[in-house]
Amino acid sequence: ADDGKSGLCIGNIFGLDVGGTLAKLVYFEQMHASDTHSSMHAASSGIRVDDQELNSEGNIHRRFSSTIVRGNGNEHDSTENGNGSIPHLNGNGKPSHPKRSCSCPAERASVKKVASCMDFTRSFKHEEALRNFYEFARRHDTYGETGVKEKHLSFKSRELGGEFHFIRFETRNMDSALRLIKTNNLHVNIREMGATGGGAHKYADDWEKALGIQMNKQEELEAMVVGMQFVLSSVVGECYTFKPRDEELPRRKTSISSETMDGPVDDWWWSRKVKRDTATDNASYPYLLVTIGTGVSILRIDGPRKHTRVSGSTIGGGTYYGLCRLLTTVDNFQDVLDLAKEGDPTKVDMMVGDIYGAHSDALEKLGLPANIVASSFGKLVAKHDPADGVTEEDLARALLLMITNNIGQVAYLNACLYKTPRIYFVGNFLRHNNLSARRLAYAIDYWSGGKMEALFLEHEGYFGALGAFLLNQEQRNGQPVFTGDDSSAKDGMKSIAQTLLQRAQETLQLRTKSMSSS
Amino acid sequence: ADDGKSGLCIGNIFGLDVGGTLAKLVYFEQMHASDTHSSMHAASSGIRVDDQELNSEGNIHRRFSSTIVRGNGNEHDSTENGNGSIPHLNGNGKPSHPKRSCSCPAERASVKKVASCMDFTRSFKHEEALRNFYEFARRHDTYGETGVKEKHLSFKSRELGGEFHFIRFETRNMDSALRLIKTNNLHVNIREMGATGGGAHKYADDWEKALGIQMNKQEELEAMVVGMQFVLSSVVGECYTFKPRDEELPRRKTSISSETMDGPVDDWWWSRKVKRDTATDNASYPYLLVTIGTGVSILRIDGPRKHTRVSGSTIGGGTYYGLCRLLTTVDNFQDVLDLAKEGDPTKVDMMVGDIYGAHSDALEKLGLPANIVASSFGKLVAKHDPADGVTEEDLARALLLMITNNIGQVAYLNACLYKTPRIYFVGNFLRHNNLSARRLAYAIDYWSGGKMEALFLEHEGYFGALGAFLLNQEQRNGQPVFTGDDSSAKDGMKSIAQTLLQRAQETLQLRTKSMSSS
Repeated sequence: ADDGKSGLCIGNIFGLDVGGTLAKLVYFEQMHASDTHSSMHAASSGIRVDDQELNSEGNIHRRFSSTIVRGNGNEHDSTENGNGSIPHLNGNGKPSHPKRSCSCPAERASVKKVASCMDFTRSFKHEEALRNFYEFARRHDTYGETGVKEKHLSFKSRELGGEFHFIRFETRNMDSALRLIKTNNLHVNIREMGATGGGAHKYADDWEKALGIQMNKQEELEAMVVGMQFVLSSVVGECYTFKPRDEELPRRKTSISSETMDGPVDDWWWSRKVKRDTATDNASYPYLLVTIGTGVSILRIDGPRKHTRVSGSTIGGGTYYGLCRLLTTVDNFQDVLDLAKEGDPTKVDMMVGDIYGAHSDALEKLGLPANIVASSFGKLVAKHDPADGVTEEDLARALLLMITNNIGQVAYLNACLYKTPRIYFVGNFLRHNNLSARRLAYAIDYWSGGKMEALFLEHEGYFGALGAFLLNQEQRNGQPVFTGDDSSAKDGMKSIAQTLLQRAQETLQLRTKSMSSS
Repeated sequence: ADDGKSGLCIGNIFGLDVGGTLAKLVYFEQMHASDTHSSMHAASSGIRVDDQELNSEGNIHRRFSSTIVRGNGNEHDSTENGNGSIPHLNGNGKPSHPKRSCSCPAERASVKKVASCMDFTRSFKHEEALRNFYEFARRHDTYGETGVKEKHLSFKSRELGGEFHFIRFETRNMDSALRLIKTNNLHVNIREMGATGGGAHKYADDWEKALGIQMNKQEELEAMVVGMQFVLSSVVGECYTFKPRDEELPRRKTSISSETMDGPVDDWWWSRKVKRDTATDNASYPYLLVTIGTGVSILRIDGPRKHTRVSGSTIGGGTYYGLCRLLTTVDNFQDVLDLAKEGDPTKVDMMVGDIYGAHSDALEKLGLPANIVASSFGKLVAKHDPADGVTEEDLARALLLMITNNIGQVAYLNACLYKTPRIYFVGNFLRHNNLSARRLAYAIDYWSGGKMEALFLEHEGYFGALGAFLLNQEQRNGQPVFTGDDSSAKDGMKSIAQTLLQRAQETLQLRTKSMSSS
């Protein structure tokens, strides 16, 4: 081709989500011999991947191969037009035609065989392009200035017969990301990919011009919900919350704008990480989804792929990091979080005790503890030199708690309005940010008197990218992913993940049947 | 007395409210000849005082004198124990005894006579002490480093037969306030005064030790509600809101976290100040009261003196001023507000257009304008040098809008929860702060689709001090102010102001009767 393109496209293994601050890239890798290390990573990171059944077989590769669904022969799958569909998402709602299924019986499948299995439905060139990319991605843990592969998040999907990998980089480094892709010739085999987030629009022209890659733009919130619901129904151990160390201890009496957790004792107190099962049946709806990225969006989820943006806030992760960059000398989001861990917010926050006097009997009468915040940063009002005796750590901590509390409060008020006892908090603001997650868990529990629960997800920042990947498959297949079930097709209520699972099971049954009859 | 006290107390003319940042002092002055200038002030400031009836008589002093209710002879009123009650608040629910009423007939009352009228129920020493204080207060418009008399807020109460005056100073200057009081011997005739706010507790010992003045502490939120309800029912023209310049213009389509008002056009657009009548009957309940001081409290008001604190926020005026002191070189609250007027928040806020690209057709499809804020201060995340090209004005403006929007949102969500179509915003954060008031008016209107209204009050910061004054009278009289009406006594629902009005009318009738029979 004139544009230097190879004539084929492996773009359907990607999902890209370009937010205001961070760009998130997901890529999907079909199971190969060399993937065993990923399995180890997933296991060691505390994320239990849904592969117990595989392990019990003693050979994860054979099992994976047995669930692989081959391409269904629609035009998107032909290498001629450069589109190699992810075969498991054939999307026609019917089991794949037996003659297109992997023809090497599972019993005889070896590690090598599985890899070669792929070749039946793909051209050698296509397979080679994929291998080239996977090898490049595997060689590095960081990319360019700010790109990082979050290896601990990789997870296997038995239904899709492969593994998802997660890379992020800072949106402001988009130019160097484009250069890196070009330098490494990664764009040659990509004509289009699923993308979402505002940046999918903003940078679409740049990608097209610089790399000849077209963004298949997916709506941002839909992508996030689809990605989240997919993970909830396919990754075991995804969901967790925080509880007090000792359930027997009575709840502490504090006010709504409480900061009693700031002391080391209280931080320790509400820090027990507890895994939560995620119900995916109808009884689990509605719930609230609070995504804390650069800004904050609050969605009410009424069913699979049925959501409404009900609220939001401009006070989000961008506010935290943006203000921290003004108030401190630290210039990295993670470092600013680390800074906060060492800070004492009472150096800048005006506590109730500062107004009433720490030992006022009035506070006892009012039932108010002296150590709750009356006004964030309010102590700086009364000081001769506001910066006197205040460290960067104190500022970072006070800001983090102010923003976290505020998000929690806006979420809680919406949960009251929409009567949603479960509130999922996601988004990259929560990445490596236990201070905020614990505070949210505590605050929601406290304000609701234990009637609501804050929930967190291990893949907190990647649902948009995953959704872009999934929705892109759907779009390429020219029909919605939820099919097969008449009622679900009618109301569009069946989750993509449930459908995928069902389809994989049907295929597995068919193949088992055909194998036992052979 | 050993403590240098004069043996009498004029402390009952005061109400003090010591908040985290500002201390507010109210003093009550019975009508005197020299008070005519205050009437002018009130009129010229756009606050219409409820004195039309007086003006129609052509002699406000005579009319005032005719509504004065004398002391009722209970022990609090005797000069022997140093307590001179404000006679109009005798609180026994019965008309004053005729023999204690002013014996100079209203017909003969001159300006001089009215003043001398006072002497009938007070000792000369008591009268002199009051005159000394009033003269001191009148001589100055500022006191010490930060004390300011807000002359434009003075208002006359026909029912109470006098005028309220308002002084504020910064709480951090408490020590110099004590010195100023001592230097001017103002404390000599004061043994106790009504006080509220956290500082009434924190500084009680200081006042007792330095000045021999005892704080009669009143509960903070109750004082605020009582003070506000008193003003609502006695000051005409107290309440207002902002409306668009042209009601015919359709409401602009913006999102919840909108910042479309930031341009000069939009600032002008929603800037028409409109007076609002305040209903004080039962149909007006419940309403929401949002008090924005150093921190924010949100109360649901279910009736006269019936309130519940339902929510609040640590992000308030103290947060604004505290952070501004770190981010700018300006060191005065009013100057920081003036700074904000000149700023462009889009220099630091990440707008939707910054994420999607300003001219993305995706925004049109989404119905999102590019010029709404996605993340407050989020633009600083992506810049090489976050401070580059950003002025102090931009920072002050962005911070002001962030905090104002957030308070509006938390208030709005609570108004939804408690189904209160009217939201009163008060507190000194709103003093001389039209930027915030207009934004709140616009935001509440927008979010609620015109079903809710933000309301503002001219005496926004002084309700706690007024309430401290009123509750102190009540306490000194040893019984609740709402009496006389059986049903209201039963449920405690009748407002203090209504009761005062009724009592004054009863007294007037009695006096008119006694005068005509004499």
